[in-house]
Amino acid sequence: MADWLESLDRLARERAKAGLTRQLLPRPAGDRVVDLAGNDYLGLAGHPEVVGAARQALAAYGLGATGSRLVRGSTDAHAALERELAAWLGTAASLVFSSGYLANLAVIRAAAAVCDLVVSDAYNHASLIDGCKMSGRPVVVAPHNDPAGVAAILDAHRGRTAAVVTESVFSVDGDLAPLAELYAVTSARGALLIVDDAHALGLLGPSGSGGVRAAGLAGRPDVLVTATLSKSLGGAGGVVAGAEPVIRHLVDTGRTFIYDTAPPPAVVAGVHAAIGLARSADDRRATLAERGGRIAARLRAAGFPVADPAAGVLSVLAPGPEAALGWAADCRDRGVAVGCFRPPSTPDGSSRLRLTLNAGVPEADFARALNVIVECAP
Amino acid sequence: MADWLESLDRLARERAKAGLTRQLLPRPAGDRVVDLAGNDYLGLAGHPEVVGAARQALAAYGLGATGSRLVRGSTDAHAALERELAAWLGTAASLVFSSGYLANLAVIRAAAAVCDLVVSDAYNHASLIDGCKMSGRPVVVAPHNDPAGVAAILDAHRGRTAAVVTESVFSVDGDLAPLAELYAVTSARGALLIVDDAHALGLLGPSGSGGVRAAGLAGRPDVLVTATLSKSLGGAGGVVAGAEPVIRHLVDTGRTFIYDTAPPPAVVAGVHAAIGLARSADDRRATLAERGGRIAARLRAAGFPVADPAAGVLSVLAPGPEAALGWAADCRDRGVAVGCFRPPSTPDGSSRLRLTLNAGVPEADFARALNVIVECAP
Repeated sequence: MADWLESLDRLARERAKAGLTRQLLPRPAGDRVVDLAGNDYLGLAGHPEVVGAARQALAAYGLGATGSRLVRGSTDAHAALERELAAWLGTAASLVFSSGYLANLAVIRAAAAVCDLVVSDAYNHASLIDGCKMSGRPVVVAPHNDPAGVAAILDAHRGRTAAVVTESVFSVDGDLAPLAELYAVTSARGALLIVDDAHALGLLGPSGSGGVRAAGLAGRPDVLVTATLSKSLGGAGGVVAGAEPVIRHLVDTGRTFIYDTAPPPAVVAGVHAAIGLARSADDRRATLAERGGRIAARLRAAGFPVADPAAGVLSVLAPGPEAALGWAADCRDRGVAVGCFRPPSTPDGSSRLRLTLNAGVPEADFARALNVIVECAP
Repeated sequence: MADWLESLDRLARERAKAGLTRQLLPRPAGDRVVDLAGNDYLGLAGHPEVVGAARQALAAYGLGATGSRLVRGSTDAHAALERELAAWLGTAASLVFSSGYLANLAVIRAAAAVCDLVVSDAYNHASLIDGCKMSGRPVVVAPHNDPAGVAAILDAHRGRTAAVVTESVFSVDGDLAPLAELYAVTSARGALLIVDDAHALGLLGPSGSGGVRAAGLAGRPDVLVTATLSKSLGGAGGVVAGAEPVIRHLVDTGRTFIYDTAPPPAVVAGVHAAIGLARSADDRRATLAERGGRIAARLRAAGFPVADPAAGVLSVLAPGPEAALGWAADCRDRGVAVGCFRPPSTPDGSSRLRLTLNAGVPEADFARALNVIVECAP
């Protein structure tokens, strides 16, 4: 065996020893497991209108977009989705990417064209961290959800143009960023605020238009929003939304936009249909809020210190990676899928169950899942 | 207007002055343009079996995968595609990503876990360049398609474990890398060879199994292959294929794998069906080879120094970015889509038409397109 393969094997043994091995567990179609692990918050991934719109676009365009957006991949479906997203998010324009990861890499690099400092929340998602790294600018990590901390960093770098990067609802713990306070800090200092709205889009704000709009910041020229199309919209891909010059800059220079095959028209059309449903899904959002309160109360009663979720994500600390894995496995054995987050997927090195709400889960299943989670606790 | 928005506007004016503005031109469904711009080499994106398989998976699974591969996104469709890809490419295992860009970022970072030097061909794709940058290792750029140059770099860094990164068929000019010679250089020096087979998969090798297999390198433990599922396979996404420890490393640590929503089951199922068709598409590959020879001969007769394409890509130099843009626009006005590549999308700073072959284009359309391209030449 080659030296480097032996080195990989050694690394694998070290991960196994630390309880950090991961396993792919494919699910069959029509899986009967109760889903408290995925991100299909509004239960739209399988909605007949979403599936129907995708099916129609599949027939009209074929499967793949057959090229990058600038060469052959832009279809009327892409343009229509971008108009709809901009209207919903309240921005001048938007640009769709084949993944939220690629959208995040692009937006921070675009900001770096005109900023010479990037300030990144300590709990930011891997894609934002990678985007900061790839920006080529100095990166300062700010304490989590701490506008005063961000202000101190900006004040310590007076004279620089900064981009401040945060999530609106954080992906692991589900806590809400103080966006209005952050914006007060950034706007007073001429800084740009970049917000990943992945876990708030469809859940917060008027008509589910997201955390940025909920904070009254939609359409501000010095705020950029990114989001995924794969969570509450039940599809795949990502989006950057903001002022027109930013979107133009991304079209002209965004590497992960220019050098990537466009997302499939069928996915784009399905997501477009999902937005229509999400905008009028106040009933589903009410279900999520009620269930969020209920699950938190139940966990607190069982001795777990959790807060009510801000949107659809809730985390419960486990004693360690193997305990978390065992807890999740026991739940799965009893028909309930929950997320198991271990390092390096957790911001603070501790292991957790991550529970996500799904308005499409029937009430009886949800109630049973609550019992299972508590009964399986280590 | 904020300072940084003004800066973005200034950059946009500079790009406009240099002829480097890009424009999205959405195409309608059922577009009648002759496609010599996309990457649907085998004409499978709209094949009834591909569309049918996607439609079936859409009905069975819904649209989105609803989570990352390790949380909720792995379905039987993903596992089946990964087995099929490994069998076709002749590797022990494979792992699917939602984009070829993300696959390339992942594979180089994985290599960097056990290598301390990355050697990158001068003409590599943006995703490979970004992957090298993100690897955190020193990167040496090697002269294009030059095994002796790579050998000299490796010899100058004796004692280091290196990963050498190349494409098999280069995306802009369509030329073939000397893979067997490169492998002789890397294997003799204990280096790893990483090959992006995006533009060869489906076109070269036995049953279209790609450039790596064509060079007799399939399944070597010190060769890693990446490819897109969006070109000859007519879908979307990317893949890393190679030895089992590499795939295991990616599942456990690959950031663009772990922290990204899984590709939609319908796309995955459509790509799987496309592989079946691609394996037995020797007739389509013969059409591509014949057309490649014909288009090159025609362009040479018109005074353009081009070589016969190695696979499905051919580039013609234009006098400058605006001439290239005008040439492509004139072709489009006459119903022929061709690629227009300008800096920074070209490896050497010159502008080109990029012509791509598509076995699904009817012969009469192809013959007419040839005339149009030559008649519109600046």
